[in-house]
Amino acid sequence: MDYLRKLFSPKSVTVIGASGKEGSLGKMFMDALTGMAYRGSIYPVNPKTEIINGIRCFQTIQSLPGIPDLAVILLPKEKVIDIIDELAEKGIDTVVVISAGFREVGEEGAAREQALIKRIKKHGMRLLGPNCMGVFNTEERISLNATFSPTPPSPGHVGFISQSGALGVAVLELSSSRGLGFSCFASTGNKADISDVDCLQFMAGDANTRSIIIYQESLDNPHELRKICARIVPHKPLLILKAGRTESGLKAASSHTGALASDDWLTDAFLRQCGMIRCETLQELLDAAWAFESPKKIKGKGIAIVSNAGGPGILASDALEKQGFQLAELTPQTKQTLTALLPPEASVSNPVDMIAGATHETYRQVCEHVEKDTHVHAVLVIIVKPPVKTTPALIIKELVPLLKHTEKYFVFTIMSAMDENDGREQLAELHIPWYQTPESAARALGVLRKYSKVRERFKNAPPALGHEFQPSETVEKKRRQASAEELFTLLQASRLPVCPYLLTTDIRQLLKFKSGRGKIVLKIANKEIIHKSEHGLVKTGLSSDPEIKAAVDEIISGAISILPEGTTPLILAQEMIEEGVEFILGAKEDPHFGKVVMFGIGGIFVELYRDVAFRALPVDLGDALHMIGELKGKTLLQGFRQFAAIDQEALAQTIVDFADLIETNPEIAEMDLNPLIWSYKLKKPIVADSRCTLFTA
Amino acid sequence: MDYLRKLFSPKSVTVIGASGKEGSLGKMFMDALTGMAYRGSIYPVNPKTEIINGIRCFQTIQSLPGIPDLAVILLPKEKVIDIIDELAEKGIDTVVVISAGFREVGEEGAAREQALIKRIKKHGMRLLGPNCMGVFNTEERISLNATFSPTPPSPGHVGFISQSGALGVAVLELSSSRGLGFSCFASTGNKADISDVDCLQFMAGDANTRSIIIYQESLDNPHELRKICARIVPHKPLLILKAGRTESGLKAASSHTGALASDDWLTDAFLRQCGMIRCETLQELLDAAWAFESPKKIKGKGIAIVSNAGGPGILASDALEKQGFQLAELTPQTKQTLTALLPPEASVSNPVDMIAGATHETYRQVCEHVEKDTHVHAVLVIIVKPPVKTTPALIIKELVPLLKHTEKYFVFTIMSAMDENDGREQLAELHIPWYQTPESAARALGVLRKYSKVRERFKNAPPALGHEFQPSETVEKKRRQASAEELFTLLQASRLPVCPYLLTTDIRQLLKFKSGRGKIVLKIANKEIIHKSEHGLVKTGLSSDPEIKAAVDEIISGAISILPEGTTPLILAQEMIEEGVEFILGAKEDPHFGKVVMFGIGGIFVELYRDVAFRALPVDLGDALHMIGELKGKTLLQGFRQFAAIDQEALAQTIVDFADLIETNPEIAEMDLNPLIWSYKLKKPIVADSRCTLFTA
Repeated sequence: MDYLRKLFSPKSVTVIGASGKEGSLGKMFMDALTGMAYRGSIYPVNPKTEIINGIRCFQTIQSLPGIPDLAVILLPKEKVIDIIDELAEKGIDTVVVISAGFREVGEEGAAREQALIKRIKKHGMRLLGPNCMGVFNTEERISLNATFSPTPPSPGHVGFISQSGALGVAVLELSSSRGLGFSCFASTGNKADISDVDCLQFMAGDANTRSIIIYQESLDNPHELRKICARIVPHKPLLILKAGRTESGLKAASSHTGALASDDWLTDAFLRQCGMIRCETLQELLDAAWAFESPKKIKGKGIAIVSNAGGPGILASDALEKQGFQLAELTPQTKQTLTALLPPEASVSNPVDMIAGATHETYRQVCEHVEKDTHVHAVLVIIVKPPVKTTPALIIKELVPLLKHTEKYFVFTIMSAMDENDGREQLAELHIPWYQTPESAARALGVLRKYSKVRERFKNAPPALGHEFQPSETVEKKRRQASAEELFTLLQASRLPVCPYLLTTDIRQLLKFKSGRGKIVLKIANKEIIHKSEHGLVKTGLSSDPEIKAAVDEIISGAISILPEGTTPLILAQEMIEEGVEFILGAKEDPHFGKVVMFGIGGIFVELYRDVAFRALPVDLGDALHMIGELKGKTLLQGFRQFAAIDQEALAQTIVDFADLIETNPEIAEMDLNPLIWSYKLKKPIVADSRCTLFTA
Repeated sequence: MDYLRKLFSPKSVTVIGASGKEGSLGKMFMDALTGMAYRGSIYPVNPKTEIINGIRCFQTIQSLPGIPDLAVILLPKEKVIDIIDELAEKGIDTVVVISAGFREVGEEGAAREQALIKRIKKHGMRLLGPNCMGVFNTEERISLNATFSPTPPSPGHVGFISQSGALGVAVLELSSSRGLGFSCFASTGNKADISDVDCLQFMAGDANTRSIIIYQESLDNPHELRKICARIVPHKPLLILKAGRTESGLKAASSHTGALASDDWLTDAFLRQCGMIRCETLQELLDAAWAFESPKKIKGKGIAIVSNAGGPGILASDALEKQGFQLAELTPQTKQTLTALLPPEASVSNPVDMIAGATHETYRQVCEHVEKDTHVHAVLVIIVKPPVKTTPALIIKELVPLLKHTEKYFVFTIMSAMDENDGREQLAELHIPWYQTPESAARALGVLRKYSKVRERFKNAPPALGHEFQPSETVEKKRRQASAEELFTLLQASRLPVCPYLLTTDIRQLLKFKSGRGKIVLKIANKEIIHKSEHGLVKTGLSSDPEIKAAVDEIISGAISILPEGTTPLILAQEMIEEGVEFILGAKEDPHFGKVVMFGIGGIFVELYRDVAFRALPVDLGDALHMIGELKGKTLLQGFRQFAAIDQEALAQTIVDFADLIETNPEIAEMDLNPLIWSYKLKKPIVADSRCTLFTA
């Protein structure tokens, strides 16, 4: 991984296209690089300049003393490719191309990018970009700012990967006033070579990085991403803002799984499988990153709120409850002490409302007692600009000794305009997060909670990995409907429990199949007919011979009117599962994530309520149980009204068996087991109907 | 409404408990009052002081020259009541009690509050508070700040009602840095007399108030609130932040309606019925209020995004789409012009990405062309801190002429730290909203969109009003289960279509009922047995005589084992509706909102997916159609897979008929029509089963 070391911690950097001309990109870049007291050597290259920002400028790459670790190219797009050869000749093998005008501008640019990558590969070099904003690393012994950001980075512990350079600038700007600091940053731009996965690899091992935030418009190498996430998540939280949330990915599809697998749903499922925490908005991403600034952990569910006003306390309670926290029940001793401390108008239950007269001493005394309470695992301190005698800054100053020594997690909501009295700088110094509203504080704590759950899961049962998928987005593979025989062959080769059945065209065989069984179901089985029920070609609850004969007649005459001429109608007979709950289990190949499996509540409600969960292969028992747990209708499985509880482990095992079937039969393009009926009598799920599309060779 | 004029626009104010002592509430209040250049006369009252802030102080109320419009009481709680008599004697009839220590501090305080109100009523006076922060009115000819807020209000057009005084302060603080200004404010505190409804009455008629924001912990006088909202909503948006969102209101209930009617769901439905727009967080409330600062309206769905960076543009697109907006397809002319203007790396499709090099001239030129585009109804301008040559302030300055003259709605996202170059003050002067992130801008535009829909609805069909409900929270009324006969009597007196039925204990009558019909259903009808299916006492799809006889035997023997000894099992026979969709229609009396009606998708999914909508009575056809439209599963009604479309108007009429039944029979405590089956054959909904609890006299 020498290229990652050279990219993020280079001992020397050459800047191709450095400039001394005010307002030029080359000058901005040099200003940033020299402005941060970089500890390595800087070699600007520009044939027309002698000195830039007091540093000697070189006329050619060839004339550079030694071999710089990293080359940054700021030249116009046309000149980029040729310079690669010169860099290679000099022995430089790690390059950042800031220049734009490649894949992002259409065909001509895409061709240029391909040529660039070909050249890079030929020389065995590695490249970040093109069309990116560069990298920085605030670690004191490095202090590299190789970006053209107008905002210098504040040192801190957040690693940041952004596909968009501008979003990088925006984040630095919006964070600067809040005290959120960054350890390192890479803008990946067109991701022609070095990807997010590479950057994550560096940040995984970077001791200075405690949490990682990511902005992405596209997710590449999903398999590699899962692998690196599995390594990182037990140690550092991964927060992601994924843009491009539209549902436009939904296409007409013959299977339910296909119809329900929108791009964004799959992305959502995939990110969850990676252990990443997806944030809904940029603000939420920043708020959450900030919550991780504190090195402390919340070791329980009990939160105490200490406020000088009632309303914000109620808003905070509501928001915390929504995030799954509980307001701690303060111990009688704490309440007693607080009662003695506070005026009679105050409230000593949680939220503790000290009312508007609370001074900095009141805050200190109350917080000291609440912090000591064994029921309390974290404290949310709310300060509405006090009417008299104190300021947020004075309150925080008074709290500093406690904040320095407590092992409990503290977070602040400061509901005042940002000014010299707001005390925020003191909190930033102590790495204590603060927010302007109670709800944003609660939401950020909610992310901490989510992460602690994900971390536990990943520590205890690292996700199964092994399924490789090569996307071939350019080639649309041909497909065909599987016949009923093919379907049953596939199912019988798996461990999936299939309902007793008979495929026939012979009425006598049907009557024989019926004898000795309860009610049966008859349906058309020709693969040409997809929407059987809608054509009235499914007959259920049949028991007597005349009933069966009449049903066969109806199905056959109905089928003949639909089937291509000369096709013989084929009938599928199955034993009817009378007491059960319908589920759906499906799979499809996604051009981006590979094979994905879907599980949900079945019946007509599949599409109505879209109550389904997705996972990319491989799917292990833990994944399958989580899929079940994600269903909104999971109450149904826990025993509900007339429905008995369902063995979730057995159901999860069926999901795993199905995933195995999909994995071992790569020719399956799409498959639905619908309904998969949980039989209360047999205490297991039974495949009652299925449908499958195969890739043709 | 003279008391409202005196409260919000008093010609003179007397301050009982004014003080010259620094740090005291009396001094803070006087500072606020004199600090805003109040146009009326101020009469401080304090026996121990002669002059406060240069104003003559009076020793007694009696000695005041003339009769002040408004008296504000800042005295300790014990002294408040006696002073009321003195004020009455002087002829003062409108009072604000700032003092705390009343209902909010428990029993003793509640008694004090009752005594206070008794005194107020005795003298025919009106009172705001107690335990409140006061009122302000920034209208130039008034300039009243009768609060003890440490932050002076900025003049503007937002009316603000806050139950919590502190939240009022917080909102003023958080708004001050953003340029959001207020027309008037009332902190209602304990709402012992003057309520939100009164304050809304003033703001409805206040020309200076263009939008109203409300913070409430409890909603009082729901009926009066609906009436005043119906008057306001066609003219001014009402935004509300309702605290106390917990689900704790859910109690064990015998009906589905009871089980699903949590406090917060009812509140949600009620606010929607009022035409109020409920905001989820304080930030959302402020963001939304800001969007209404612009007097312009968005006259279509087409939004254009103009940005100097790609990433934020994508985030904005995602967020706008989520809010129901469409990105405008720019006309070929606009695209052609932009192509000529912008570098080849730029994107001239919407979002227009001018890339990082965009200067203030670029912004002006592009915005001018985009604004002219006939497909564009609103423009979101995004500025990421530009790397070179310009600043947000310069860009906005350059845009001022366009912004002054355009009739289209402009909104900004300025993604930079707040500093002297951010240009925000210029936008505030032009009443143009700006946000720090693309998503908050989009969300605020979404609120504009919601309001424009609600306004149209209220303009075209003002909500029906007339149902009065007197809450009697203190008395828990007694209830009993209605018998099957009572139920059918109620149903038959209504216009609700009931399934043909027979109530009997006689098998011969049952067989007679069957003859000439299709399949029938038999079920136990004794009111003692509530969960019929769970006891196996419902038999469906019966057609032959032996089947019916066997079913009757099973039901009777099953029922006998459950029923109290000596009770004769009663059987209900109904014709079976074979082809249909199950709904649920229910009602209950809520202690706060009165009678509420519930409609939803039925079957086992009622409780599983909670796909139901509530409305308080009265419910008209428009309400009923909106209830149907709120269902997540409404696709089912529009024609879905094998299900034909359902006549929604007919279904809505049934909801109205049911609401009428509930309104005309006040003895109904809870009632479920479950299932209400839409029969495809009859093309109407049929009540297939029902259950009812009655209040006992």
